[in-house]
Amino acid sequence: MNISSEIQALCKRARTAGHDLARHDGPTINRALGYMADYLQAQKGDIQAANARDLDAAQAEGLTGAKLQRLNLDDRVFGQMVEGIHQVIELPYPVGEVLREWSRPNGLHLRKMRVPIGVIGIIYESRPNVTVDASVLCLKTNNTVVLRGGSEAFHSNQALCEALRAGAVKAGLPEDAVQLLPTTDRAAITALCHQDKYLDLIIPRGGEGLIRTVTAEARMPVLKHFDGICHVYLHREADPAMAESIVLNAKCQKPGVCNAAETLLVDRDAAPELLPRLAKALAAAGVELRGDAEAVSLLERAGLEASPASEDDWKAEYLDLILAVKIVGDVEEAIAHIHRYGSAHTDVIVTANIAVAEEFLQRVDSAAVMWNASSRFHDGFAFGFGAEIGISTDKLHARGPMGLEELTSYKYLVSGQGQVRE
Amino acid sequence: MNISSEIQALCKRARTAGHDLARHDGPTINRALGYMADYLQAQKGDIQAANARDLDAAQAEGLTGAKLQRLNLDDRVFGQMVEGIHQVIELPYPVGEVLREWSRPNGLHLRKMRVPIGVIGIIYESRPNVTVDASVLCLKTNNTVVLRGGSEAFHSNQALCEALRAGAVKAGLPEDAVQLLPTTDRAAITALCHQDKYLDLIIPRGGEGLIRTVTAEARMPVLKHFDGICHVYLHREADPAMAESIVLNAKCQKPGVCNAAETLLVDRDAAPELLPRLAKALAAAGVELRGDAEAVSLLERAGLEASPASEDDWKAEYLDLILAVKIVGDVEEAIAHIHRYGSAHTDVIVTANIAVAEEFLQRVDSAAVMWNASSRFHDGFAFGFGAEIGISTDKLHARGPMGLEELTSYKYLVSGQGQVRE
Repeated sequence: MNISSEIQALCKRARTAGHDLARHDGPTINRALGYMADYLQAQKGDIQAANARDLDAAQAEGLTGAKLQRLNLDDRVFGQMVEGIHQVIELPYPVGEVLREWSRPNGLHLRKMRVPIGVIGIIYESRPNVTVDASVLCLKTNNTVVLRGGSEAFHSNQALCEALRAGAVKAGLPEDAVQLLPTTDRAAITALCHQDKYLDLIIPRGGEGLIRTVTAEARMPVLKHFDGICHVYLHREADPAMAESIVLNAKCQKPGVCNAAETLLVDRDAAPELLPRLAKALAAAGVELRGDAEAVSLLERAGLEASPASEDDWKAEYLDLILAVKIVGDVEEAIAHIHRYGSAHTDVIVTANIAVAEEFLQRVDSAAVMWNASSRFHDGFAFGFGAEIGISTDKLHARGPMGLEELTSYKYLVSGQGQVRE
Repeated sequence: MNISSEIQALCKRARTAGHDLARHDGPTINRALGYMADYLQAQKGDIQAANARDLDAAQAEGLTGAKLQRLNLDDRVFGQMVEGIHQVIELPYPVGEVLREWSRPNGLHLRKMRVPIGVIGIIYESRPNVTVDASVLCLKTNNTVVLRGGSEAFHSNQALCEALRAGAVKAGLPEDAVQLLPTTDRAAITALCHQDKYLDLIIPRGGEGLIRTVTAEARMPVLKHFDGICHVYLHREADPAMAESIVLNAKCQKPGVCNAAETLLVDRDAAPELLPRLAKALAAAGVELRGDAEAVSLLERAGLEASPASEDDWKAEYLDLILAVKIVGDVEEAIAHIHRYGSAHTDVIVTANIAVAEEFLQRVDSAAVMWNASSRFHDGFAFGFGAEIGISTDKLHARGPMGLEELTSYKYLVSGQGQVRE
């Protein structure tokens, strides 16, 4: 069998399993998740042995540092992964919820009910614990999953997947509720993207290249977790201490993530007071500043350093200790800059002026718009969703943090007494 | 300029217009829609002259009958089109609605607010009134639209689009809130499908070929309005008169639409009573039956006619006076058949048994599942949405009738007092 028909057969099994899985209730699902945690714990030795194989191969291929570390299923990561399952078990079960219920003048009674999406494909890179984290969220909402992990983590993912499947079976769920592609061949991604008959959704989690491939090839809906070119805008009425605290947190607390700040916009009227203060604090935190001409000259007059920003800097997702800085005239110019260069992920205003804040919150077209808070709060845990599969940068279906509810669809249940259409 | 860069420039204008359009409130939008209706009425002569040009060309190319009629903007269609705008003006304005509002233990306050999707591309065939119907629904929800109509209706669409743009401008909205592609070249569809930077959504309305092209090429979300292989299942406890009335209505009231029935499933226990009665009524309505071996032999014994169904008949969307008929053992077999061959659009059970009905409603994975009612009720008007842009066969974002709410997205507005992440 060639890759394409092998993957088609696998996806077809996922669809069949999906119709079976949809019949099971919340308690059964939670029991299955509990068994999965048990099997992971029981098979920890085998899983870590498989992981050691992957780590050896990665080292032999020259992988080092953070990249190698991400692959490592050490006791700490393993423990968090299992603990994560127990947290998901505790979350409310959303499937079957009646979202709306109404009657029509002709006597038809309608219910709009939350249902599983169906079959979800997840394509991810490197970190093997995603195999468990993502599967568990999909299963909690009665979705079957087809996983395609990174080639470096192939043996780890296989071992993890076996434990998940054993847990499903023990609770009476179909074994094929969780499946891992049998190959990490790149052609398998394309083949998966063409299974729109059997897959309802693909979620790509990874670098820009992966996301572009999936977006171009997929014939089913895709929910992207793309880049965050996030802005912090300091309005002239920003409290200086709050401005400093928020900018430092948004830039430095975890610079490698999508909700970290990449560009600072400062009102011209407040820049002489705010900018030198901020530049000192940021320099102390090891942040390199790249300013427009006005910002650079202002900082130079204050005896501080900043390199000149190019057009590319306004479009950059540094994911590093670098911050682009631009002086703007007012909130209008700030919003125009954000709409022109931003990625509509997370944008922040710092101001004591309620009217200006509300104008910014209403008008900036981003998944999360924040007032006097760090952009780092944009995630499913901080929002109170209990878990997240990622932060969607799309505007359809799910925008921002994707928790359990965002992993569901709905259908209409219509009850009549023999009504026909005139 | 080549087609691709021309369309890119057009979509970029749509994005800019979208940020402007998002600032206008419900009353302004409604005023604009009113002006659009006025301009259409005032320019009716020009529009019908343009339409006559299209009709002449279509006739010269040999178009006749229903296909030619669909192109015709006669006084009746024109009147309905203008009246449709006034109906949309009367609908509640959904943008800005706070869907959920809550606070977190750290004092952050969150609002989940309904916002426009942004820029919507609509690709449709033939009927020029879609230019107005679809634009008006998108504009009511502050979305800008990029239209690509059929080549046969090009001059009509241009004239209609001019009136819509004039109405927008008179109310102070951006002219580019509505744009029509300047060419109906097929390459323009591909170019449009690649503008994921400027287009948030594409809605293809048309035949299977168009939908397959858009699905394969699009890099942004697509909401398909695809086929309806709809089933009516007659359970052994179906009331015979109700069964006859529903089957006739579902099949014959408007056979060319997606929510018409295509396959009849009949419980073995009830078939000897139900099937001959139904076959007579359907034959009188001019319906051809294609049955499985058991159904054919049962009907033959009753002196009635049915041709044998092939495997293809279970997958057929006839859109015509043809009905496939299959005998099943029970609700279990009916559901299995629907999941195997159906298109998850609309499926109906007729029964007096509440428990069986609820089992069917819960388990059939279709956009609308109905009990004792005709499948023809599956649309936005019958559901009480006031309008619809179509019936989505996708499970993501919108499933079933797409009314105004389904043309919106949401964003999170987060207010703090200086909170930063630990």
